[in-house]
Amino acid sequence: MDYEVVVNELKKEIKYFLNDKNAIIGISGGIDSAAVAALCVEAVGKDRVIGIQMPYGNQSTEDGTILMKHLDIDFGDNSVINIKPIVDTFSKELTMIENTKLTNGNIRARVRMSLLYAIAGGSNGMVMGTGNKTEILLGYFTKYGDGGVDVEVIGNLYKTEIFELARYMKLPECIINKAPSAELWEGQTDENEIGMTYKEMDGILRGIEFIDEYGVDISDELISKYGKEKIDILLKKVKDSKHKREMPKSLIIKK
Amino acid sequence: MDYEVVVNELKKEIKYFLNDKNAIIGISGGIDSAAVAALCVEAVGKDRVIGIQMPYGNQSTEDGTILMKHLDIDFGDNSVINIKPIVDTFSKELTMIENTKLTNGNIRARVRMSLLYAIAGGSNGMVMGTGNKTEILLGYFTKYGDGGVDVEVIGNLYKTEIFELARYMKLPECIINKAPSAELWEGQTDENEIGMTYKEMDGILRGIEFIDEYGVDISDELISKYGKEKIDILLKKVKDSKHKREMPKSLIIKK
Repeated sequence: MDYEVVVNELKKEIKYFLNDKNAIIGISGGIDSAAVAALCVEAVGKDRVIGIQMPYGNQSTEDGTILMKHLDIDFGDNSVINIKPIVDTFSKELTMIENTKLTNGNIRARVRMSLLYAIAGGSNGMVMGTGNKTEILLGYFTKYGDGGVDVEVIGNLYKTEIFELARYMKLPECIINKAPSAELWEGQTDENEIGMTYKEMDGILRGIEFIDEYGVDISDELISKYGKEKIDILLKKVKDSKHKREMPKSLIIKK
Repeated sequence: MDYEVVVNELKKEIKYFLNDKNAIIGISGGIDSAAVAALCVEAVGKDRVIGIQMPYGNQSTEDGTILMKHLDIDFGDNSVINIKPIVDTFSKELTMIENTKLTNGNIRARVRMSLLYAIAGGSNGMVMGTGNKTEILLGYFTKYGDGGVDVEVIGNLYKTEIFELARYMKLPECIINKAPSAELWEGQTDENEIGMTYKEMDGILRGIEFIDEYGVDISDELISKYGKEKIDILLKKVKDSKHKREMPKSLIIKK
């Protein structure tokens, strides 16, 4: 892929989408939000990009700060909201269910969404999504959490393509080199959790992309390259997460 | 409309949608959530319906409790979560923007969504939406707040039809008779805020429904009945809220 073309296309699209609005972006220190922030700065200028870091407790803000300084959009404490007090208040009030790691991770994602929309509402902004094609297809995001945005800036790029984009855009090495993590809990890495590398995931998803999202007509070539088991794991994820890529349906009444 | 048919159709649809899952419903004391809860109880039985009241501070839970007792799904304190501690923690942390009534109202809606999903996740549940056709068309809901649900149970019924449905289902009079309010702040009523009655809104929306959502080809009959000004107000709301009825787009890269 020609990343000069990709960057130029996305810059045009971002500019058109934002019109006179500002770009509000949750900065995680990861590569996706870094790429989105960098693209927005190139598209509309740094004065119209508001990056917000939302660590939970002592989650590191080091890489996020490096990125924001790199893009000259860092406002120190004004760029950081620690979500621990909010998330912990949720946990305290939610006495009727078990507070599992997953429940807590989803609350974190939804708190971040709520904060970004509050900031967008108060500053003529739009919430810029940082989901990539791989995680959108696999449903590897929280419904109405990190999936709750106004536009998915890099939603047509696979994760492995985001890495190439980030290298082309010369984003800080520390961000490009670290293991991707949804950061929903400590020590999480995407590849460990899903059980395969992003290279494998993208290879498989590309291979089935042009057939049918729910199809099982997988080529022998794909099976011999990646193994049936891994393909089936991903196919199941795509199928099970269909509802996350669609608006909630209104029940139909046949009058 | 024949409400016996409507109830039977919706019961079938709810049953099919839920499969083996439980119905999780935010009970506001208003007519929409009352109708959805009553339909779910009829569809899958009271043991599979979890109603949760989520008042802010001293907002009344009286009507919600009457409804839940009426449906025999009330579990006293276990059916109530006061969202004030959570919402107030948001406000405290959000120092970078002005805490307007609207910002605060949206946070309340998103906190309620987050709680319902946490409960759904912890109890094999689906979040049942309570949006009606009138408010969905007008965008009279919080994106990723009360709009953040798994299915819109009564999304194909106009508000005035919900009143008739509620009467047919013999829901408590106190719920049928009170002025509809989004309850995002104290004293709010929908009709005051929008500046016309639901009867007018539904009459207008029905009149333009079969043309085009963004069309301006309004019949002279509709104009003489409701006045051009009110029609224009609603048309603008429909147009401006288009993004609330669609999934966020992924920006397109022409490769």
